[in-house]
Amino acid sequence: MAKSRFEYVRNYELPDPLIPGTFIVVRIDGRGFHKFSDAHQFRKPNDKRALDLMDLAAKTVMNEYKDVILAFGESDEYSFLLRRNTKLYNRRRSKITSSIVSLFTSAYVFHWSVYLPNTPLQYPPSFDSRAVIYPTEKEVRDYFAWRQADTHINNLYNTAFWALVQGGQTTTEANKTLQGTDSKDKNELLFSKYNINYNNLPAMYRKGSICVRQPLPMSTVDPLSPTPPVTQRLATTADIIADHDSSLDQPNAQLANDEQKPIKKPKKVKPYEGIDGELVIVYEDIIKDQFWNERPWLLL
Amino acid sequence: MAKSRFEYVRNYELPDPLIPGTFIVVRIDGRGFHKFSDAHQFRKPNDKRALDLMDLAAKTVMNEYKDVILAFGESDEYSFLLRRNTKLYNRRRSKITSSIVSLFTSAYVFHWSVYLPNTPLQYPPSFDSRAVIYPTEKEVRDYFAWRQADTHINNLYNTAFWALVQGGQTTTEANKTLQGTDSKDKNELLFSKYNINYNNLPAMYRKGSICVRQPLPMSTVDPLSPTPPVTQRLATTADIIADHDSSLDQPNAQLANDEQKPIKKPKKVKPYEGIDGELVIVYEDIIKDQFWNERPWLLL
Amino acid sequence: MAKSRFEYVRNYELPDPLIPGTFIVVRIDGRGFHKFSDAHQFRKPNDKRALDLMDLAAKTVMNEYKDVILAFGESDEYSFLLRRNTKLYNRRRSKITSSIVSLFTSAYVFHWSVYLPNTPLQYPPSFDSRAVIYPTEKEVRDYFAWRQADTHINNLYNTAFWALVQGGQTTTEANKTLQGTDSKDKNELLFSKYNINYNNLPAMYRKGSICVRQPLPMSTVDPLSPTPPVTQRLATTADIIADHDSSLDQPNAQLANDEQKPIKKPKKVKPYEGIDGELVIVYEDIIKDQFWNERPWLLL
Amino acid sequence: MAKSRFEYVRNYELPDPLIPGTFIVVRIDGRGFHKFSDAHQFRKPNDKRALDLMDLAAKTVMNEYKDVILAFGESDEYSFLLRRNTKLYNRRRSKITSSIVSLFTSAYVFHWSVYLPNTPLQYPPSFDSRAVIYPTEKEVRDYFAWRQADTHINNLYNTAFWALVQGGQTTTEANKTLQGTDSKDKNELLFSKYNINYNNLPAMYRKGSICVRQPLPMSTVDPLSPTPPVTQRLATTADIIADHDSSLDQPNAQLANDEQKPIKKPKKVKPYEGIDGELVIVYEDIIKDQFWNERPWLLL
Repeated sequence: MAKSRFEYVRNYELPDPLIPGTFIVVRIDGRGFHKFSDAHQFRKPNDKRALDLMDLAAKTVMNEYKDVILAFGESDEYSFLLRRNTKLYNRRRSKITSSIVSLFTSAYVFHWSVYLPNTPLQYPPSFDSRAVIYPTEKEVRDYFAWRQADTHINNLYNTAFWALVQGGQTTTEANKTLQGTDSKDKNELLFSKYNINYNNLPAMYRKGSICVRQPLPMSTVDPLSPTPPVTQRLATTADIIADHDSSLDQPNAQLANDEQKPIKKPKKVKPYEGIDGELVIVYEDIIKDQFWNERPWLLL
Repeated sequence: MAKSRFEYVRNYELPDPLIPGTFIVVRIDGRGFHKFSDAHQFRKPNDKRALDLMDLAAKTVMNEYKDVILAFGESDEYSFLLRRNTKLYNRRRSKITSSIVSLFTSAYVFHWSVYLPNTPLQYPPSFDSRAVIYPTEKEVRDYFAWRQADTHINNLYNTAFWALVQGGQTTTEANKTLQGTDSKDKNELLFSKYNINYNNLPAMYRKGSICVRQPLPMSTVDPLSPTPPVTQRLATTADIIADHDSSLDQPNAQLANDEQKPIKKPKKVKPYEGIDGELVIVYEDIIKDQFWNERPWLLL
Repeated sequence: MAKSRFEYVRNYELPDPLIPGTFIVVRIDGRGFHKFSDAHQFRKPNDKRALDLMDLAAKTVMNEYKDVILAFGESDEYSFLLRRNTKLYNRRRSKITSSIVSLFTSAYVFHWSVYLPNTPLQYPPSFDSRAVIYPTEKEVRDYFAWRQADTHINNLYNTAFWALVQGGQTTTEANKTLQGTDSKDKNELLFSKYNINYNNLPAMYRKGSICVRQPLPMSTVDPLSPTPPVTQRLATTADIIADHDSSLDQPNAQLANDEQKPIKKPKKVKPYEGIDGELVIVYEDIIKDQFWNERPWLLL
Repeated sequence: MAKSRFEYVRNYELPDPLIPGTFIVVRIDGRGFHKFSDAHQFRKPNDKRALDLMDLAAKTVMNEYKDVILAFGESDEYSFLLRRNTKLYNRRRSKITSSIVSLFTSAYVFHWSVYLPNTPLQYPPSFDSRAVIYPTEKEVRDYFAWRQADTHINNLYNTAFWALVQGGQTTTEANKTLQGTDSKDKNELLFSKYNINYNNLPAMYRKGSICVRQPLPMSTVDPLSPTPPVTQRLATTADIIADHDSSLDQPNAQLANDEQKPIKKPKKVKPYEGIDGELVIVYEDIIKDQFWNERPWLLL
């Protein structure tokens, strides 16, 4: 096609590759979500519907980008881990960060009515995103540990804060009451004054949401038959929602679940076998070893 | 608030400031829009509804970010110009590119039914984005000239292509027919065979959409009275749609319009007086001087 | 040639191009030059020999890199301006900054004995360097104005400081004496107490050194004869030193000179005519317009 | 000190930090060393004097920068490894790459006459440099393996090439003779035609130079006495040259040496115990495990 004499301006688009062989974490954050949650009357301190919507948007991202192998969400933020050797968009920084935040946002608006059918969306919400490079497994684990520790700290505070407010304090008074308190103090306050056992609250609130692929059970793979072709289809809304974990209704149901199911032995799991597994949301401890030992392909 | 021992991972988030005193252009592009437009039966070669939706999403961005002073769109892409000395997000590259593409996407999905009420959105669409730095006025003008020249080339080709297809050729045949033809050939083909005078087609298709603020007429500013406060409110959907230019129904209506209205004298326009003007979509020649002379604040 | 299986590590070398169409300034700074100047008994407040050596090293750089069109030095630093559209090393940041600082350093050590024949170099000195991008003429002029203003401020302070010390104060006392004084105070102190008229001190000390190419006189270009081939030879030490300006012996000699020679009319100067001119060191005002008007090719 | 109105230009100096917790390799390369080696009649295919000078310049760098823990050189290039967690210059890219190449260059010129006393330096040579980030131990080892494999390939070629030339072929003929040959062919050519057993050539030529700190012998550390203070003095030329390994005179002397000396047990070596050890140049295999096992602090 004919080129115009203005074409030279393309030379100003400079390359922005991320270093090869490193883990990429893309974190998206809600812009102005304090106001947004007020405008849409989100429940305090946690609104399960809004969190489920975030989880579904995250699933949409992971469903589209196979190299996103893990995601962790809390409140209005979500972090996506791309596998160490991903070649997605030739590791171009802007392309990766913008495509992920755009799809996440799109899914958030698109699926809104699934979880908040009676709350009309008043204006288009948005998120920002950034990519951070981590060189080794250690920093990746510490990154997710950081986010989960943050979830705990924020949620304990918010739970105590809203208990005080719902108990009659103004927000200013509640803030003052909590000033200088540590975790133990807040736990005690909740238990003694409001009869809330913090540890019995839903794991989703205390631990955040982890989105990960469930490795296919060993038994389903018949070594004599050829591997079934992976159908690269666009997941429909129904698909994505159908497999959305709803075990949250009983507090700690997930953790209880975990104890019952036989734990896969890490050593037998082959690299990336999890790649084609079903997407699930779990509310587990991501700080301890168990989570990672069960999913060794995450840190390859 | 207590800090965890994992906090150190924040140090991996490196600064990414864009060079001060330069023009920033953020261009967003639809991802997989060939497929998306098929899935939603967009009309060929141009679907005014889809273009109007793009324009509305662009307006949403400009309504939110006052430092975005100009936007140009065609097909599934849009370019946003930030003023040279913007301090938006301290000129952080990822923050700017991600926030703009996220809001654009969000508005696109949010406003979908305004223009395509009978076409249910089947899955969440997404866009990527990138920021490009231009040092002087010259490159900025050439950038937008490049995009408008591209609009012309693509639209002439597509118009001829779909005329041939609607005239009975297969897509392969149509491609072959057009191989090696220049602009003149295509114009002649359209006129002689399909009685289409290309220059009479809607300016929106031939020139793309320009979103810009309309400077307040001089007469509205009473030098003796205090400046009326600019109400920094969230524009409602109604607002944004209301002022959406619908002059497209008559081909070249916009251009005709331009000739009638008295052209503001560039020299009297004060810096940034356009900043608080109403957002309008126009379909003008952005390559020649007139557009820029009428809006001197764009290149300050 | 055979490739080893380790070759993949090359992929970690990422591109680092500087934005096209912008001015590049490379500034080099002496590392540990306080100690270095003590170790080699540099004279205070200025050592002409050391400054001449810096100038010669700068000339060596400009002699090698034709796209370095201007340099400004003071104390142990030097700034190099590359022309706006230079293609040097494809504008790769590391390649440009490292090559310039390396050649400068090399020339500094190589030519040491020219100016300090009786002061054996005790250990190898070094410099760091950085590249800064400036988008337009304005910032380039302001950059050099900044460095020259800095030269003035530092030199006035140092001149007063060493006058006090040579007059019997300890360095601590001298610092204290000067605390809170402005330019006028320091000028007066120098004049009243030490009979020094600051404005009569050598321009080199007060204004810093400017290295620039002298445009060829118009008369030397015979329009009827072919352009003589530019002999791309390595300048010998003798060449470079020979044309080193030694007009410093009389204060302000350079400025006086400037007034005598007929000023070239900017408009007749053709682009880059200065490129092949002889390198000279001048000690002029780089803040006012005249310097730039006489050398219009610098800001093309 | 008073600030000028030009000070704003400093804002154009943007941060350029390298990712924390990663290995930094700075590689310097001679600029125009083909010509430089001709101009100074370097011996072919290898000039031990020139290589010793390179090694000494590398030692000067490592002597100054304690966080440079390993260097590898061949021909006119040298690679420096900075320890993973170095905080040198806050990991600023330009500062690190420019300071190292400047000091290397300076030392090269400064020490020239030590190794080439009868060859006057004709003009100042220069080097460029770049920094490359490697995330884990694996890439670091592979990087140095890459350079050593390259040394072998180049040296075998050059040895064969110059044997042919010294045997009477023109350089064009020699190039042609070697076209399409593999290692075995070249080895055989050298042996059958020139009676050269390639493996008996000096290890320096075949393997390149490794500069590393010698860990203090265990026996010298008396656990009951306090650690002797590390005297942070500037090494004199004499110091640096004195400990320069001169075992090269007998081919393979170094390797022979290696076999005789008792190999330190990796496990007993404490982190960074090598940091204060004496700088030595060795000509060892850096591809196999032994080199790294003996110096476990390199990859911490």
